[in-house]
Amino acid sequence: MTLRHLLDIESLKPAQLIELLDTAETLRELSERGSRKLPLLRGKTVVNLFFEASTRTRTTFELAASRLSADVVNLDVASSSASKGESLLDTMATLEAMHCDLFVVRHQASGAARFFAEHAAPHVSILNAGDGRNSHPTQALLDMLTIRQHKHDFSELKVLIVGDVLHSRVARSDFQALNLLRTGEVRVCGPMTLMPPNLTDFGISYFPKLSDAISDVDVVIMLRLQRERMKGAFLPSEREYFHYYGLTAELLKRAKPDCIVMHPGPMNRGVEIASDVADGPQSVIRAQVSNGLAVRMAVMAKVLGAQVPQVSSRQAAL
Amino acid sequence: MTLRHLLDIESLKPAQLIELLDTAETLRELSERGSRKLPLLRGKTVVNLFFEASTRTRTTFELAASRLSADVVNLDVASSSASKGESLLDTMATLEAMHCDLFVVRHQASGAARFFAEHAAPHVSILNAGDGRNSHPTQALLDMLTIRQHKHDFSELKVLIVGDVLHSRVARSDFQALNLLRTGEVRVCGPMTLMPPNLTDFGISYFPKLSDAISDVDVVIMLRLQRERMKGAFLPSEREYFHYYGLTAELLKRAKPDCIVMHPGPMNRGVEIASDVADGPQSVIRAQVSNGLAVRMAVMAKVLGAQVPQVSSRQAAL
Amino acid sequence: MTLRHLLDIESLKPAQLIELLDTAETLRELSERGSRKLPLLRGKTVVNLFFEASTRTRTTFELAASRLSADVVNLDVASSSASKGESLLDTMATLEAMHCDLFVVRHQASGAARFFAEHAAPHVSILNAGDGRNSHPTQALLDMLTIRQHKHDFSELKVLIVGDVLHSRVARSDFQALNLLRTGEVRVCGPMTLMPPNLTDFGISYFPKLSDAISDVDVVIMLRLQRERMKGAFLPSEREYFHYYGLTAELLKRAKPDCIVMHPGPMNRGVEIASDVADGPQSVIRAQVSNGLAVRMAVMAKVLGAQVPQVSSRQAAL
Repeated sequence: MTLRHLLDIESLKPAQLIELLDTAETLRELSERGSRKLPLLRGKTVVNLFFEASTRTRTTFELAASRLSADVVNLDVASSSASKGESLLDTMATLEAMHCDLFVVRHQASGAARFFAEHAAPHVSILNAGDGRNSHPTQALLDMLTIRQHKHDFSELKVLIVGDVLHSRVARSDFQALNLLRTGEVRVCGPMTLMPPNLTDFGISYFPKLSDAISDVDVVIMLRLQRERMKGAFLPSEREYFHYYGLTAELLKRAKPDCIVMHPGPMNRGVEIASDVADGPQSVIRAQVSNGLAVRMAVMAKVLGAQVPQVSSRQAAL
Repeated sequence: MTLRHLLDIESLKPAQLIELLDTAETLRELSERGSRKLPLLRGKTVVNLFFEASTRTRTTFELAASRLSADVVNLDVASSSASKGESLLDTMATLEAMHCDLFVVRHQASGAARFFAEHAAPHVSILNAGDGRNSHPTQALLDMLTIRQHKHDFSELKVLIVGDVLHSRVARSDFQALNLLRTGEVRVCGPMTLMPPNLTDFGISYFPKLSDAISDVDVVIMLRLQRERMKGAFLPSEREYFHYYGLTAELLKRAKPDCIVMHPGPMNRGVEIASDVADGPQSVIRAQVSNGLAVRMAVMAKVLGAQVPQVSSRQAAL
Repeated sequence: MTLRHLLDIESLKPAQLIELLDTAETLRELSERGSRKLPLLRGKTVVNLFFEASTRTRTTFELAASRLSADVVNLDVASSSASKGESLLDTMATLEAMHCDLFVVRHQASGAARFFAEHAAPHVSILNAGDGRNSHPTQALLDMLTIRQHKHDFSELKVLIVGDVLHSRVARSDFQALNLLRTGEVRVCGPMTLMPPNLTDFGISYFPKLSDAISDVDVVIMLRLQRERMKGAFLPSEREYFHYYGLTAELLKRAKPDCIVMHPGPMNRGVEIASDVADGPQSVIRAQVSNGLAVRMAVMAKVLGAQVPQVSSRQAAL
């Protein structure tokens, strides 16, 4: 399998998605065994091209690149030449001419990563770190990896996503990934005003009440409530949101006993999730973060053509 | 000796403090002999978690970590997820889950470093880079290292600290370190309104006049005047401050002839110290900076369990 | 040849300039052959001391240092101790005491780099990354390297520089470099109000009309129009500027058929240069960027005394 860019989930074949998960698993195991620094991308340069500030996400990509021994350049585009009137494509072309190999792009506009990919020089790869409401493929990959570590057969799973599905690129990418992996049932729950119109076309069922939605599920993914949406009159108050759509220990009891709880972070405790659930035994939120690092390393290695060593069952390869 | 965190000076045993100074001395010598880059922390990740902006201090920690071959991530917390409503502990837990090993924490609140240490994952160390008025342990260590390089027996030394002692975490940590090393006499001088109430409990003598205080001392440490304190009506003006508490060549003559002059930096020339004294033969202010790098490397190596090579008297070990 | 600092072009001897170009060419070839990461500056620390924000330029220096395996510290001086009242020289002295080896200085004041060089510690080198209207030596070196790659004998060349020559440190450094290389003819064109008074002293001829100026030239260098100058009433509007001094395909036909088009970037498309010319076959603007990286690596290696490997005609040395 070759993969030049990672722009979204829908362009992946199931085998590609699974190979990325396998590679991430290998890298995670190598790291657990103490191989924190791998020489796979030595001499390569990764540019974090963030048009939308996100220290948290940028840090994950920065760490992923460093662990693979790449050089990393962080470009806060708001303060760069972009504001001096240079076009986005000229900024990219300039960095390409300095032999940068991979651009990790985050942008508030849907389609931005694809736009860069269409205009990238032949030696350059683009990795979408979130574009508008469109896609956030590495988040979906880390979510799938986390589910796979806890559950075995996707076809028998009931997965529930709760919150502002309409504006969520995480939800959108998760739907596509769950679909590629032939997940048994996908449900959503949240205010009707925050649901996309065509859910049923994708075989997703909508539940207005969380107590119904969560019944008997294997996985529940809580979306982050963007506080700025509150002002848009979609929602009465954070307190009321929690009352209707916040995940509590009481509600979680209605899911399967081994149901796992996920959240892309950063969490609003007491808004979309109760603290005791976030820190409870069914929460895999910390594991998601570790998997996020492994997934980003895997994607970087893959698109830049690095050979990831195999881990034998007995010993670390490096 | 094992040391998981460095939170303050008062929790150290004298032997621990001396071992840190010895390690710093070794690292300084290795550096002088040309071993600028040591592989001791290769594969480790150091996070600079600065809640209080300080480019100068951050740069020292960044350089210390780089010289030991660690990966470094700088997190300006004001602009990060902390402002998106994520709790401090969630921010730390997220970075822990990405296999970060050491958090260098600077915070405006006293006790912040201890708070992080109490909640840190088992594999994580905390290094206090200054918390409120409480502690600044690496500054105290570098001060002690600098004194030890110039003076031999602490029990025979008279040390004077001048300035805003009340608000100074540097003074507080220096007192504790000087105490651990059984310093002969510790004096303070400065406006009465900027002195803590219980000095005599610690065997520290207060002198209202600098000309008296400096008489016959071996070491004088000038504190930085925080200009923002001026507005608090503690002090009439910078000019008057210099008149009463600024260190001049004339005043320095009243100290021992080999008295050394120290300052934690950044200096306000003409406010707490005259330029000719700052640049004069008795000033060891530049040496303090070099020692600061060595001390930070020593602490990082120690808390992360790295084995620092011994320097034989004839050859560099690396 | 030894070179401790690079402050401007006028202090260079022709042989020094040529040696720098040769070294840059070698480094460029090594990079083309896949040697992206060279160990030449391992253990050295490069500080980007930028008093004038320029992400683009800073990134080039950062990449150049990383490719040579140096540690890099970026110091945004506006937010550092400089604003706490510390003097510039104290800031530099502090970094010197931390064993930093090379300061890349950008400053809005002409002469700033020389000022730092005059006060630098003996082990420290200064590299001017642009000071006021005075000098931008690495830009001139990359321009000369780019010309040399396309044209052979400088003594037979006609070179035209178009735009705000008066305020341009790029133009000033290019004049000096072209002079050192005994360029056949140097012309300038632009609004009379944006021309320095003593052009003829340097043997440079002024043409008020671009259609005359460009006639029969081998090289045309378009300067960036600083939009902030517009407000200074020098120029009526961007549209009118383009009408009189913008480079179009039509005008370019008046130059030699193999005339190359250069621009220091970032470009204002449609202001000083038409898009089709910027992207056209005669544009070498991307090559300039690649050469800029090579030139900065060459200068860093030279001033820090690193031995750059020779490239044999058949194989990469590293």
